[in-house]
Amino acid sequence: MLRRDYEGQHCSVASALETIGERWTMLVIREVLQGRRKFAEMQRVLGVARNVLANRLQRLTDEGILERRIYSERPERYEYFLTQKGLDLWPVFVALMHWGDTYMPQPGGPPVRLVHKDGCGGAIDDRRICERCGEHVTVRDVTGILDPEVERGIAEKLST
Amino acid sequence: MLRRDYEGQHCSVASALETIGERWTMLVIREVLQGRRKFAEMQRVLGVARNVLANRLQRLTDEGILERRIYSERPERYEYFLTQKGLDLWPVFVALMHWGDTYMPQPGGPPVRLVHKDGCGGAIDDRRICERCGEHVTVRDVTGILDPEVERGIAEKLST
Repeated sequence: MLRRDYEGQHCSVASALETIGERWTMLVIREVLQGRRKFAEMQRVLGVARNVLANRLQRLTDEGILERRIYSERPERYEYFLTQKGLDLWPVFVALMHWGDTYMPQPGGPPVRLVHKDGCGGAIDDRRICERCGEHVTVRDVTGILDPEVERGIAEKLST
Repeated sequence: MLRRDYEGQHCSVASALETIGERWTMLVIREVLQGRRKFAEMQRVLGVARNVLANRLQRLTDEGILERRIYSERPERYEYFLTQKGLDLWPVFVALMHWGDTYMPQPGGPPVRLVHKDGCGGAIDDRRICERCGEHVTVRDVTGILDPEVERGIAEKLST
């Protein structure tokens, strides 16, 4: 059984944090949200110790937030995908991102801008509403546009 | 200088987590959101070690998320209040709460229900919109109604 980090706290925030509040966990989910599905890719971009990453992926799979699919048998290799439970964490990311953009602004501007797909192109506000067409969007309706500098940094890490 | 937990991650989510991602930090903010402003109250409800709580309150004050106001000179005692930067974390709580309510439901139903104040009484959805009147609410427009069982549990902790 998992250790209950916040025992005695009858609180949905505490329950959520017991599952996703460990160091690196949210950034591992961010990686998969951004389409980096392989252990080696995530490890390069995050620069996290391999055992920590393996532990987080295992826990997230056990919790039903990620599911893994084999893509190579020899050597055995998996790709990770978000389940619906995992995709439903997207509002937490949007909220954290807006707060971070507001209070810890990067010199070059926001590292990622969320944009409505499907020909609209409107910016997504902190309530996950398209500022152009007013649609209440979900993660599937949105694409994240990276700042070119950030994109270059990721490409560099992936190529080493 | 604070240790940069997620060095090399040019990401607003990572920046936000560097500030609020430590164990207990979000629950300390939750306490202040719920109006428990004194060290002893928070310590009883959270059941956290005193040195950990003192550390988190100091860090949150240093980061400008909480501010403290003296209410007793001998002994020296403070109450903690959320700054605007702290209040602006409310969307993160709403998102975590909805996810926890959905995927880790408590046997007795949601521990807290968010309700529009000012005579409306509508429920607040996961986009922070009032389901009755359609207003886009902020933390100041909303009250959290605790499940009676949860409220009893908190009262018990506070009285010990």
